Amino acid sequence: MDGTYYVGVDLGGTYIKAGLVDEHGAHLSNLKLATQADRETETVVSNIHKAAEQAIAEAKVPRDAVAGIGIGSPGPLSHSKGIIYKPANIPCFRNLPLRDIIYAKTGIRTTLENDANAAAWGEFWAGAGRDVKDFIMFTLGTGIGGGIIVDGRMLRGHFENGAEIGHCIVARNGRQCGCGQRGCVEAYSSAHNIATRAAELIGQGEASSLKSIIDSGEELNAKHVEQAAKAGDALAMRVWDDACHYLAVLIVNMQHICNPQRIVLAGGLIAAGDYLLNRVREYAQQETWKLLDDMPEIRFADLGDNAGFIGAAGCAWEACRTGQW
Amino acid sequence: MDGTYYVGVDLGGTYIKAGLVDEHGAHLSNLKLATQADRETETVVSNIHKAAEQAIAEAKVPRDAVAGIGIGSPGPLSHSKGIIYKPANIPCFRNLPLRDIIYAKTGIRTTLENDANAAAWGEFWAGAGRDVKDFIMFTLGTGIGGGIIVDGRMLRGHFENGAEIGHCIVARNGRQCGCGQRGCVEAYSSAHNIATRAAELIGQGEASSLKSIIDSGEELNAKHVEQAAKAGDALAMRVWDDACHYLAVLIVNMQHICNPQRIVLAGGLIAAGDYLLNRVREYAQQETWKLLDDMPEIRFADLGDNAGFIGAAGCAWEACRTGQW
Repeated sequence: MDGTYYVGVDLGGTYIKAGLVDEHGAHLSNLKLATQADRETETVVSNIHKAAEQAIAEAKVPRDAVAGIGIGSPGPLSHSKGIIYKPANIPCFRNLPLRDIIYAKTGIRTTLENDANAAAWGEFWAGAGRDVKDFIMFTLGTGIGGGIIVDGRMLRGHFENGAEIGHCIVARNGRQCGCGQRGCVEAYSSAHNIATRAAELIGQGEASSLKSIIDSGEELNAKHVEQAAKAGDALAMRVWDDACHYLAVLIVNMQHICNPQRIVLAGGLIAAGDYLLNRVREYAQQETWKLLDDMPEIRFADLGDNAGFIGAAGCAWEACRTGQW
Repeated sequence: MDGTYYVGVDLGGTYIKAGLVDEHGAHLSNLKLATQADRETETVVSNIHKAAEQAIAEAKVPRDAVAGIGIGSPGPLSHSKGIIYKPANIPCFRNLPLRDIIYAKTGIRTTLENDANAAAWGEFWAGAGRDVKDFIMFTLGTGIGGGIIVDGRMLRGHFENGAEIGHCIVARNGRQCGCGQRGCVEAYSSAHNIATRAAELIGQGEASSLKSIIDSGEELNAKHVEQAAKAGDALAMRVWDDACHYLAVLIVNMQHICNPQRIVLAGGLIAAGDYLLNRVREYAQQETWKLLDDMPEIRFADLGDNAGFIGAAGCAWEACRTGQW
């Protein structure tokens, strides 16, 4: 596959990121367009098409050297059918056969993948997992997403909805999650929930230096909680530590289920650096069994915001390699 | 592979079960020998060899129609290296290259698999999972073992120690487990732990009809707890319900991680029938999310005690099919 290239498109509710990527995962172009998710379907589809064409044009590569297009999209969606069902942040999309639409518009074979899976594939293919075969990525943002690679293959599952690791229950009868469950790891450890949990506890009358931020009318975020915890605020420390502790429980559970060589953390929350990573590692060592030493390495992702489009391109590369679109 | 056969050996601490199995998973012989696990390595190995030869002889099949031998063994072990490290219930085995030993003794290619994985593979190949591709089995015995099949392939993981689902943590800072962790599902839901937890609570002074069994000097077992729960004993009901509830939490977690079509329960505990299955199903429905309907089917296994040797034979069949021994 020397000299062939892959378009990666990372579709988000606000922006479409796209680029042309070579067979080693290096990108030759890298651009960002507005999604215009509040407009009608045709506009959003046209923006996706435009981003893909622009990624090729900007890379100055002959069009016939482009072997595939990969699109990472918010779900729920079907990879095998190429259909996006009803993404929360692109309300005009309803059961849209985006894969076949983009194939028809470009004449280039296209594959569709869940955005968290695509980003994990990007790190696996060209980032923090490029030297391993059993790999898991947690994306710690507003919610918690994930991608799981087992023996070099994406784990999707029968309903094509696997690796929804944020909704693993770590506390029976625990905190309410937006998904309808209670005690999901997302309800304790996502950036959004770190902030809302702190605000809730303060609202219940617990003392905290964070109260002044809430009282000022500013919306509390995870960075505020992190900073207050570092400054010794007891409530913020508890919320931050619980977030790290529940992530460690999830890591131990993934250790026993998928037994990966490496687990990589990505997403906005990793801006906290060692204040996150060291705690998560310590709690994982504390929680894990003593029978065997099969704890995966725990580290941060490499590709940052580019993981999405690079991984989407990687999904097209994989589809070419295996012949499975 | 018409007309070819596979020997399956299920190595346990007390018995070796073995049989000859055809390419559809039907067995032509089925026998049981004593393991003699308290004797020296040569004796145990000789018993395994004897069981395999007897399985062929009793089936009255030409020896050259036997394409492979599969051995399911207690771990920890390495499938890829064919080595058993140090099984708790066969103390003479230490880093034993059993796969190559049996191959040398029989002249028939041999594969080695973790016993819980082999049993799950048996159900997947020829039992309660034969019509699905994404399948998980929980074996509920003294401990809780498991096997995970993802898109038709056994999930083993980098350290070859995947699907240790009994050691998923479902209660942070929960009950101590034999593995060194706290709050494992095994610590609440295995037959052994259902009994020991009830005994512990009674020892702490809680009232229960089960106290008379303990006082009589009889060892409490899970069947006692089940019967007392059915008869309305409050403590037994709580222990039984918690066991079912935590199994349901594990099921929901497996739903989100591996997204299987079906989860099958096996092992001694399923003798409780609907009193187990209905509660587990109800709690799973209660615990799962409302975003999507991707709850796997939950049912009992089909093959009973034969799953181990049939699955071991199935592992040999798979090794022949893929060329990966």
